[in-house]
Amino acid sequence: MHFYDCSTAPSPRRARMFIAEKEINIPTTEVSIAKGEQLKPEFLKINPRATIPVLVTDEGVALTENLAIATWLEEAHPNPPLMGRTPLEKAEILQWAAIAESQGGAAIAEALRNGNPHMKGRALPGPDNYEQIPALAERGLARAGRFLEMMDERMQGRDWVAADQFSYADITCFVLCDFARMIKVRIDESKPALNAWYTKMKDRPSASL
Amino acid sequence: MHFYDCSTAPSPRRARMFIAEKEINIPTTEVSIAKGEQLKPEFLKINPRATIPVLVTDEGVALTENLAIATWLEEAHPNPPLMGRTPLEKAEILQWAAIAESQGGAAIAEALRNGNPHMKGRALPGPDNYEQIPALAERGLARAGRFLEMMDERMQGRDWVAADQFSYADITCFVLCDFARMIKVRIDESKPALNAWYTKMKDRPSASL
Repeated sequence: MHFYDCSTAPSPRRARMFIAEKEINIPTTEVSIAKGEQLKPEFLKINPRATIPVLVTDEGVALTENLAIATWLEEAHPNPPLMGRTPLEKAEILQWAAIAESQGGAAIAEALRNGNPHMKGRALPGPDNYEQIPALAERGLARAGRFLEMMDERMQGRDWVAADQFSYADITCFVLCDFARMIKVRIDESKPALNAWYTKMKDRPSASL
Repeated sequence: MHFYDCSTAPSPRRARMFIAEKEINIPTTEVSIAKGEQLKPEFLKINPRATIPVLVTDEGVALTENLAIATWLEEAHPNPPLMGRTPLEKAEILQWAAIAESQGGAAIAEALRNGNPHMKGRALPGPDNYEQIPALAERGLARAGRFLEMMDERMQGRDWVAADQFSYADITCFVLCDFARMIKVRIDESKPALNAWYTKMKDRPSASL
């Protein structure tokens, strides 16, 4: 097994945190997005879609999506369970991870990639270059705010995002919520339920890696 | 169990096709997006995020994401398996469904919702109204074309999208590829590998529902 990580980006952080919670040691290579290493021929041979994280299995299969990496690791290392035990737990955990990706992660990425001068011409990850769209940066910012409001509502009376247990859904939501700092959207006392969960998540050793 | 469907939209079509392939009969309510029924208080009580499909389980839990619906149905009705049997099959199927969503589905939706005059002020699904961004329609069109090129490359020498079997990944890719017709992006002989698979998929009874 081999893990391709990038310490500065939210997607690989999700996989890194999942691996740490499973207490698995996997040989790891850092791929610097700042230096454009994900676009170099050596890395494109591993993942032609030029995204990180990648987990290469012992059979040599490159898993290039957080969902695939988490699913595969959960089967290979069932304890502690992070993807739910019953059918309904599994469905609820995947559901909230999907909601966080499409409503939170996508919005934050839109705001950052279309608004940050360092990302000119790189408004999307992957091998193709796309120009920034300023209106999309603005819309992303608005949607990121709405996402945190929705999550605050979701967390009212709950300890965890889904299925009454710490899971892949918490890891996903935490990493994405935390990444919102990059667009100056912060979780604070104005969202008490979300803030209590966020503070608790930040204290996990896996959150500091 | 109760299924909330919409005959004109790609997301519910994915769930509808999955249910048909499982040969399960589920009482179904049609929710007309054309009439804005997804935004009415009755439906927002079922799914406050105002998206379709929704599958309400016998316990009364509303599953509002295709991934959650498919995961749950696969556990409740394991045959025929559509989500893979081995850990690697499961991971690969989820991976290609995720790639098709982020690179195909998102691009096609961006092109359609930001370019179609009937969708003015409704550039995103959900309860909030967002204005169209013409530059995003253009970018979506370019990305949709790139997605079909990538899928044609993927399908070279393959019968199915993932794990050498008909699966949730085929359903997802087929529905999204097919939806690209709405932005006048069509699969034809210029993409022979993709076209062969697409033609075969179109012939499945579940594709005509």
